[in-house]
Amino acid sequence: MESGPRGGSRPAEPGPCLSSQCGADQAASASVLSAAGAEPGSRTLAVAAVLPAGGCGERMGVPTPKQFCPVLERPLISYTLQALERACWIKDVVVVVTEENMQAMENIIQKYKHKSISLVEAGVTRHRSIFNGLRALADNRLNSKLSKPEVVIIHDAVRPFFDEDILLKVVTAAKEHGCSDYDLEFGTECLQLALKYCHIKAKLVEGSPDLWKVTYKRDLYAAESIIKERISQEICIVMDPKENEEHIGHLLEEILKTELNHVQVTSQALYNAGSDIQQINLEQCYNFVCVNVKTPDFRETQKLLSMLEESNFSLLYPIVVVSAHFLDFKLVSPSQKMESLMWIREFAKEMRKKNILLYGLLINHSQDEQKLQENLRQGAIIITALIKERNSALIGQLLVA
Amino acid sequence: MESGPRGGSRPAEPGPCLSSQCGADQAASASVLSAAGAEPGSRTLAVAAVLPAGGCGERMGVPTPKQFCPVLERPLISYTLQALERACWIKDVVVVVTEENMQAMENIIQKYKHKSISLVEAGVTRHRSIFNGLRALADNRLNSKLSKPEVVIIHDAVRPFFDEDILLKVVTAAKEHGCSDYDLEFGTECLQLALKYCHIKAKLVEGSPDLWKVTYKRDLYAAESIIKERISQEICIVMDPKENEEHIGHLLEEILKTELNHVQVTSQALYNAGSDIQQINLEQCYNFVCVNVKTPDFRETQKLLSMLEESNFSLLYPIVVVSAHFLDFKLVSPSQKMESLMWIREFAKEMRKKNILLYGLLINHSQDEQKLQENLRQGAIIITALIKERNSALIGQLLVA
Repeated sequence: MESGPRGGSRPAEPGPCLSSQCGADQAASASVLSAAGAEPGSRTLAVAAVLPAGGCGERMGVPTPKQFCPVLERPLISYTLQALERACWIKDVVVVVTEENMQAMENIIQKYKHKSISLVEAGVTRHRSIFNGLRALADNRLNSKLSKPEVVIIHDAVRPFFDEDILLKVVTAAKEHGCSDYDLEFGTECLQLALKYCHIKAKLVEGSPDLWKVTYKRDLYAAESIIKERISQEICIVMDPKENEEHIGHLLEEILKTELNHVQVTSQALYNAGSDIQQINLEQCYNFVCVNVKTPDFRETQKLLSMLEESNFSLLYPIVVVSAHFLDFKLVSPSQKMESLMWIREFAKEMRKKNILLYGLLINHSQDEQKLQENLRQGAIIITALIKERNSALIGQLLVA
Repeated sequence: MESGPRGGSRPAEPGPCLSSQCGADQAASASVLSAAGAEPGSRTLAVAAVLPAGGCGERMGVPTPKQFCPVLERPLISYTLQALERACWIKDVVVVVTEENMQAMENIIQKYKHKSISLVEAGVTRHRSIFNGLRALADNRLNSKLSKPEVVIIHDAVRPFFDEDILLKVVTAAKEHGCSDYDLEFGTECLQLALKYCHIKAKLVEGSPDLWKVTYKRDLYAAESIIKERISQEICIVMDPKENEEHIGHLLEEILKTELNHVQVTSQALYNAGSDIQQINLEQCYNFVCVNVKTPDFRETQKLLSMLEESNFSLLYPIVVVSAHFLDFKLVSPSQKMESLMWIREFAKEMRKKNILLYGLLINHSQDEQKLQENLRQGAIIITALIKERNSALIGQLLVA
């Protein structure tokens, strides 16, 4: 699908004139500019991105500009930056923000350890802001650490959901179709003027429904649900094989696999406290169930928590840890066991500060095989709910299955 | 804003040609047809609605057609029907469904007690389906209980969020601008043809962002969040004033008011089991906290639950009931209290069948005023989370604050 500068449907709202629109929800998220002289070829192109983030989000109905609205307690723009970082061929990212949000943006970059980001002050309009971002890339004097790119991706700060393939398509399109009359040094007075007078060829790049833009409050709800779903795709069951925990652990694993047929459930053993963290494939996993059967209460859980604390993997997403305890309610009253587990509440408060959500789960380890299966299934339902909701108000609670 | 039949932007997708579009998210949700001879005036117009619901929802990425997708366990189309029912001046609603979904639709109408609904079989295209719906209204022989309307609202089954004011505007616009060359009896061969050949005047009615259409899976997430938010706007605290529960009940009320500054918190007394249900303004409220202090455990909660069961108010939305129990943890071990409260789990399973979500909450009734305040605040946070999430996996759990 190709369209000339004026082809296709009219943009529904002010935006970069070089962006290609293909319907409200399938719009290509990024417009691209390639500098004069950038030739398509096998060598690696120097690619940069400009994120206009100077908007005030008046349609959102909340006082915070939408790019700074928290999603799972992290500002939306941080998710967009994280997605751009995954495309390691993007050398620099320029975020354009208003003066009043400059410090807040610096704090976000520092807190979430975003790399290769430069901040530039927004202009009066969105086009002026993009211009400021482009000038920062073109003008080496302004910021010596930025290198002049051959292709610039202009991406909405409030479109956190896209994948690298789409970006690559956009960059490829820029190389093949892009902007031969366009010069980063001199041509960026206004993108609208460039479009009007330079007859820049625009290429429509097919997007995916995920590219949608967070505009209304309901979009924040949807974004939060999508992110929760994405980080709930893998559960790791941690147990100590030396202590005969394997049997019950694997039973729980099987039931979780049945309950959550789209979720990958793996099990891991922690051999020693302080052992090599690489034993667990933590990087892909934000959900852990720690099986404590014969070992003293919380020993396995504490080992895991120490590892998680050291790793800092909870920086970007809250990690759920369910400390599962097994007890035959016929032999010992669950309330007695509860007494000994009550300190999980204080412990959970400490973990909360590190973005780790700790919950307790007491499962009736019935000698009746059928009852045990039912209790494990109930436990799996509770674990699933805790992982899906990631509700920080319920940390430290001791749930019963 | 007025536009002729071909004015404005092109519809993004197939739809009734008479619908007026004003952008992806602010599109007027309903198109209207007024029959020849319908005069604007002070007398009440006979208004009916046609809901084309024959789509298969291929963009949703789930096998169920989107209008039947569950939101808080109730099919989306039931919310749309409920919203139409609130406009009592709409006499008849015709839902157009495919043959294979006819029985499912009948079950929905019966289960959720929707009134004045007729079912008509869908055509091959959306336009044909609308035609079938209109013909059912025009042709008294087909269904004798339907009266011939003067204005027909055509409304997407997957737009559950609109208010009566918007509908009234649409109907008013139909009266003033509408369709004078148009005749329900003879003119509805195809709406597209009617538009093309009859030069029907179309009137653009300004919509609200709430009118958006559930199209993608993320829209279902958003719909669920919006509905959860709407039914969490009021909390009723129930207590027995004769048993000196008022003090602690009002303390909790004050803290809930502080924690939830947008939520209306009221308190009510239940005098006798089986007393007049009208004592509590149940109809607006889907959230209850039952304070049990000096009374035997669960007495207040049981009274309330009996009333709720009788009322059937949980038909449309799940009702949250938090049974709050106070105990000085220094005097009595919380685990002992837990023992006596454990049967809440079985009780909650029974209530679940009636769409009532019952949770237990044990609050440390410390003699230290400051500690009590902190515990109540913690209790309020837990109550808020339970109400907001409405998580059926956690029913019957006994949480501790």
